Amino acid sequence: MSEDTAPRRPRVVIAGAGFGGLQVARGLADAPVDITLVDKHNYHCFQPLLYQVATAVLSPADVAWPVRHILSRQDNVTMLMAEVTGVDRAGHALITTEGPIPYDFLVLATGATHSYFGHEEWAPFAPGLKDIEDATHLRRRILVAFERAEASGDEAARRRLLTFVIVGGGPTGVEMAGSIAEIARHALAPDFKRVDPRTARILLIEAGPRLLPAMPEPLSAYAQRRLEAMGVEVLTGRPVVDIGADHVELAGGEVIPASTKIWAAGVRASPAAQWLNAETDRAGRCLVGPDLSLPGAPEIFVIGDTAAVADSAGKPVPGIAPAAKQMGDHVAKAIEARLAGTPAPAFRYRHDGDLATIGRNSAVVKLGRLELTGFIGWMFWGFVHVYFLIGTRNRIAVALAWLWNYVTHQRAARLITGGTEAEPGPVQGRRPDEPQTPPLRQVS
Amino acid sequence: MSEDTAPRRPRVVIAGAGFGGLQVARGLADAPVDITLVDKHNYHCFQPLLYQVATAVLSPADVAWPVRHILSRQDNVTMLMAEVTGVDRAGHALITTEGPIPYDFLVLATGATHSYFGHEEWAPFAPGLKDIEDATHLRRRILVAFERAEASGDEAARRRLLTFVIVGGGPTGVEMAGSIAEIARHALAPDFKRVDPRTARILLIEAGPRLLPAMPEPLSAYAQRRLEAMGVEVLTGRPVVDIGADHVELAGGEVIPASTKIWAAGVRASPAAQWLNAETDRAGRCLVGPDLSLPGAPEIFVIGDTAAVADSAGKPVPGIAPAAKQMGDHVAKAIEARLAGTPAPAFRYRHDGDLATIGRNSAVVKLGRLELTGFIGWMFWGFVHVYFLIGTRNRIAVALAWLWNYVTHQRAARLITGGTEAEPGPVQGRRPDEPQTPPLRQVS
Repeated sequence: MSEDTAPRRPRVVIAGAGFGGLQVARGLADAPVDITLVDKHNYHCFQPLLYQVATAVLSPADVAWPVRHILSRQDNVTMLMAEVTGVDRAGHALITTEGPIPYDFLVLATGATHSYFGHEEWAPFAPGLKDIEDATHLRRRILVAFERAEASGDEAARRRLLTFVIVGGGPTGVEMAGSIAEIARHALAPDFKRVDPRTARILLIEAGPRLLPAMPEPLSAYAQRRLEAMGVEVLTGRPVVDIGADHVELAGGEVIPASTKIWAAGVRASPAAQWLNAETDRAGRCLVGPDLSLPGAPEIFVIGDTAAVADSAGKPVPGIAPAAKQMGDHVAKAIEARLAGTPAPAFRYRHDGDLATIGRNSAVVKLGRLELTGFIGWMFWGFVHVYFLIGTRNRIAVALAWLWNYVTHQRAARLITGGTEAEPGPVQGRRPDEPQTPPLRQVS
Repeated sequence: MSEDTAPRRPRVVIAGAGFGGLQVARGLADAPVDITLVDKHNYHCFQPLLYQVATAVLSPADVAWPVRHILSRQDNVTMLMAEVTGVDRAGHALITTEGPIPYDFLVLATGATHSYFGHEEWAPFAPGLKDIEDATHLRRRILVAFERAEASGDEAARRRLLTFVIVGGGPTGVEMAGSIAEIARHALAPDFKRVDPRTARILLIEAGPRLLPAMPEPLSAYAQRRLEAMGVEVLTGRPVVDIGADHVELAGGEVIPASTKIWAAGVRASPAAQWLNAETDRAGRCLVGPDLSLPGAPEIFVIGDTAAVADSAGKPVPGIAPAAKQMGDHVAKAIEARLAGTPAPAFRYRHDGDLATIGRNSAVVKLGRLELTGFIGWMFWGFVHVYFLIGTRNRIAVALAWLWNYVTHQRAARLITGGTEAEPGPVQGRRPDEPQTPPLRQVS
């Protein structure tokens, strides 16, 4: 119709609807551009609370929200559910499973995945926690281990089934260890008749000298003391050298029989740099210029966990939600500046702080000079997370999902997730004394 | 220890933790027996609300509750997560994937599954709705259809993707049709930019002369009028003769291009009769005596959807939750009577009524002489369902899951379900103009 007369609006294509990508889309709400937001899922996942899905505190729908719904009032965005497979730099198009999408500006915000430091063969035995599918998979593994321990007649098998090893002492590892300790000691304890879930052994193994290396030492020490008080065995300075279906082996030769292993030790960037044929750091993150655009390609930006960015002191910007959001904000402004013909400013990272919860009534928080622990830290942690969930219309709406649905017509659980396994699970068709942790998830 | 001196308590083995099986276990709470309850899942599923999971109103955890938790205060029950594979009648043992379980009394309450009337090849194209996995699978299919319509550039493909055919006009079919109409016309409508979900075509196809055959005719007619007012096309007296990946064919030759088909037309009993080598009716349900025990085997009971039972008028007892519960109550009393040496009474079915919801503000209810429709019927329907959810400690606790967890240490979402698909879904790796409904679920 008017295509021939009206000038075409610049096309902004954003790959990834995580914290970074979503922020770019929102930041361009009033810009004269046509945005296409591509994600392989139909939902935005609030990763900081994924561990609570893995440990059955929350339902998947509590930490995920349809991207379409978040952006439904923003007229200049089209959402496309598709997987990114490459970038045609010469043809200025993002290549997806639903076909190529031409762009004038491209933003790659495709995040990170687990890294096993060259031991990809460990992946089926020690799954990680990056998305909803990972979380329900881990939940399944953890709960099935207790079921199988109850069904098993063999004491050694029971011990192995009730041993949980978390590899990696960062926030995710600390939070998983604390949460598994709590589910075993409280929620599950009264429900089992043959085994006592309180006897479950939970090990948190860290190769470095202390837990939560981003935190000041006293907070690391506090976290370790609290976890130990909850019954978690914390092993620091102990690199893992092997992981199999039924065991974890530590440097020095100690072998721990354990059915359930959880990987929280390392991440690797998504293949954005490969799609772009761009330079990376050792973690596979794309090296970008000061304004987060690709050197030599000012129309391409890379942000979040898949970009290697340094702060003003030269330290790498951490792979956390606030950093991704700040980068998203920056790129939205940079694109607007380009459209206005003004130079894009350099990105400056502002580190607000670090926080991790340990368990009921305890968390560690470091905000500038402020350090909080215990109940105050825990309340603060909860408040911050609920606050950011409200910000994305998530937490509150979902907590009241059923009632709310009948009032507003909205559907709280509109995420497309798995749950269609025909194979009924490891408890079935398998004797309790057989190997315990088959690769439930096919790694493609 | 005391095994040699104390008399062994009779062992009651119950297969199936649905409405029937659970009721037997509860009914024997004070009986001097040792109960083993076997189920392939770790949760009891509230099937009447499954359609709301399939249509994204509720999360899976909202309609499922860990069996262990339901029975945690009942000391004479052990729960075992295992699949039943047979019965060793001579050896008096239930055969499961976790080994044989010896019984003195056996109760088979293993329910029903979909029946395609000899057309099992339709199953991958038109999945049914019997458990949580079915529900999340259907939810995925329904939501993916809208996503793919949005991504498709082909008008015929879009029409096919936005056509939903529900086969079977019983309560499940009526509820699914109404709920899909509502999600398309309200919840999804504002979120899509290229297609208008309100143009989705929703067909409810019934081979018989009217919807809801268990209801009086005026209520059937009301349900049809209400569905039509919501935009559902109701076709009665139209048997389905073929279902493929992209179409449904009706008797007479009409072919409806449709990506999403849902089977709500027939059920078939679980193989309990085969395990027992017992006589069945045409639906595969086990023929039982007046006290619900197997003819010639007074120690074996078969109840719920897998038993063929007649009411006092000679009419078959319907496959609904209240009937299963009544049978469960009866069997608990029958076992107690046997233990006391008194004869077990005959089972008498008491039909309380029928009800089905259609959509917002409308439902049909038939209770004895009382007939309700519209808002009153809908309120009644909601009240009854919430009431029964409270009865199993389900609805209320789950609606407040997050808050409640932090207060009581319980975990609302403790169900073991799927969600571990490596294959990321039909949208990906597939062009929109390719066949739309691949068999996502492998039928084993």
